[in-house]
Parts: sequence; structure tokens; C-alpha cells
Amino acid sequence: MPHITLPDLPGIRGPMAFRPETAKPLNELVDVLLRGPSTLSPGERELIATFVSARNDCRYCQTIHGAVAAAHFRGDEGLVAQVKVDFEHARVSDKLKALLVIAGKTAEGGKLVTAEDVDRARKLGATDLEIHDTVLIAAVFCMCNRYVDGLATWAPDDPDFYRQRAALVAEHGYAASTLQKPATPTTPTAPPR
Amino acid sequence: MPHITLPDLPGIRGPMAFRPETAKPLNELVDVLLRGPSTLSPGERELIATFVSARNDCRYCQTIHGAVAAAHFRGDEGLVAQVKVDFEHARVSDKLKALLVIAGKTAEGGKLVTAEDVDRARKLGATDLEIHDTVLIAAVFCMCNRYVDGLATWAPDDPDFYRQRAALVAEHGYAASTLQKPATPTTPTAPPR
Repeated sequence: MPHITLPDLPGIRGPMAFRPETAKPLNELVDVLLRGPSTLSPGERELIATFVSARNDCRYCQTIHGAVAAAHFRGDEGLVAQVKVDFEHARVSDKLKALLVIAGKTAEGGKLVTAEDVDRARKLGATDLEIHDTVLIAAVFCMCNRYVDGLATWAPDDPDFYRQRAALVAEHGYAASTLQKPATPTTPTAPPR
Repeated sequence: MPHITLPDLPGIRGPMAFRPETAKPLNELVDVLLRGPSTLSPGERELIATFVSARNDCRYCQTIHGAVAAAHFRGDEGLVAQVKVDFEHARVSDKLKALLVIAGKTAEGGKLVTAEDVDRARKLGATDLEIHDTVLIAAVFCMCNRYVDGLATWAPDDPDFYRQRAALVAEHGYAASTLQKPATPTTPTAPPR
């Protein structure tokens, strides 16, 4: 049960509905970072968000962003699972692997990122903007994970809930999906944010 | 030296000038949380931000937000120092002490916040909105601290730099101060964000 009385929505959507003034810039930030123009694909960026959320043991965030990542990779849920547990052996680019090292260290503590980590990423083709966005995505999900778990929000058990929500987000984005209804609502008490 | 080539501005202002698309919602989020309408004073909210940034050992964030907090408490830098090292004995309300416990646990990991922590805050007068905002302020500064340190940004040594910047922020806010010049610039290479 959440620590405070929230609208009956899962994960971050409860506190976002409770406090729309902060939800608006939060959704904008996530939309720009994960879906805005970038040389990293939306799927790659969702994998970074998923990986960090898994490291932070945030069930809602790692599951919904993992489902969105899978939606961007033609439903490949195996790839997402592999990135979470052993990304160095996942079928992703060497550049993304180097960025995931930076993301993981940022999540643990920003000072752990070394010049060598950044050099490795750069030698594998990462640009300054990609390195910047990787650090900020990791930092943003350290925020989201703590927001979700610090208020003890609830998370659905049914994987289909996340798949349906992910399809909506992959198509419309985070801010817009707050306003739209899913094609097939899973429960009457859980409209999309 | 920062890990990537950034505009020559201290702390978070370098990456914010580098990536204005993400700086805009970030500044809006911080302005709403720290300066928007609230039953917690701006000074109390800055103390929460300072305390979390100190726990995360982020030099730039704890110094600039500590200076802004002091500006809101008539320049009482001793109060800010006391909150950072031993808030239970600081001259702040018992309600704020209970909220600082929640903030500190959120920073360490959201799941560490207990129903008992929240009950204590509520019994001392904290509302659901104040508890929500405390968790989100702590989460937002876990993001900012990682953003600042994950990119290895630099921080000025001179305390007067932070005092001057704090006066500007306390008067105009974070988003607006990005556009305005300080009354007395400390160095020609460090204009305000």
C-alpha cells in the first residue's frame, strides 16, 4: 500500500496523477531524453533506462521500460532480459555496451565514472552527446526509481499489462499517453496516465 | 576536467548549457518543487536538497543549494552546516527533521522508507503533499548529483561565488537565473545560467 493516499494507478502514474505540476516537466524530460532526436535509437535508450532500473531493483520501472524496449526491438523480450543480467554478452553494439558501463556506474555514484570508461565509449564511436545523454538517462532513472519506491507504489503482476501499456507509449510517448486510453484496458481502475 | 567538452560553466550549468532541450524541463521541475506554492518554505525545501546532495557527496550541489538555503534563512550558514552533519540537533522544526529522515532514506534507496517513518512525519504535522514533495526533492537531487558528478563537472572554490549566485537564484528562481547576469560576476568565464 502506498505511504500516502494516491490515485489508484500503478507505479509512477499514481504520484504523477497526485501532483500534475511536477508530472508535466518530468514527462517532458523523459520524452526528450528517450524519444527526442538522437543518434541512439529509442530502443537503445529504453535499454539504458531498463538496465539502470534493474540495478536499482525498481520493479515497476524495469518492467514497463523493459516492455517498451522490447516493443522497439520487435518484441524481443529475451534481449531485454539478457541486457539486465549480462549485457556484455547481449546482442547489442559494442558502443552500447560501453555506454551501459557508464550508466551502471552513474547509477551507483557519479564519481565512479572514469576517464577510461568514457575513452572506451568514444573509441567505439560514442559522441559527446551520446555520453551526456547516457549519464542523464541513468541519473533520471535513479530519480524515477526512488520516486516510485520511496512512496511504496504498487506494480501489476500481469506481464500483459506492461505489454499493452508499452505499445501505447512506444506509439505516442510518455506525456501523450497520460491522456490517452489503451486499446484494451486491463482493469477499470488502471487507466493510462 | 569534464569527461566531455562542455561550455565553461560550473556544476550542472555546463551540461545544461550543452543540452538546453533537457535543461528546460529540468529547471521547470526544480522551480516547481523548490519555489512553487507549498506549505514547506523555500528555505526548508532547499535544506532538503542540500542535505541529500551532502549525503551523495556532490560538492557543487550541496554548496550552491546550501547557499540558497542560507539566503532564505537570513544568511545563517551555521544552520545549513548543522543540518548537513547532525540535523536532529539543528534549529529546525520536528516536522522537518522527520521529513529529512525520509529524504535521507529515499536517497539511499526508496525501499528503505518505512511506514513508521511516514507515520512519524504525519504525527508531527506533515501532510501527504509535503511527504510526496520530500520524496521527490530527494529523488530529483539524486538525479542532479549524478548528472553533475557523472560528467566530472568542475566546482568553484570561492564561497563568495556561491553566495552571489544564491542571491540571484533566491530572487529570480532557477529557470530565470539561466538568462540573467549577476550583479557582480565573479569571473568573466562563468556567467549565470
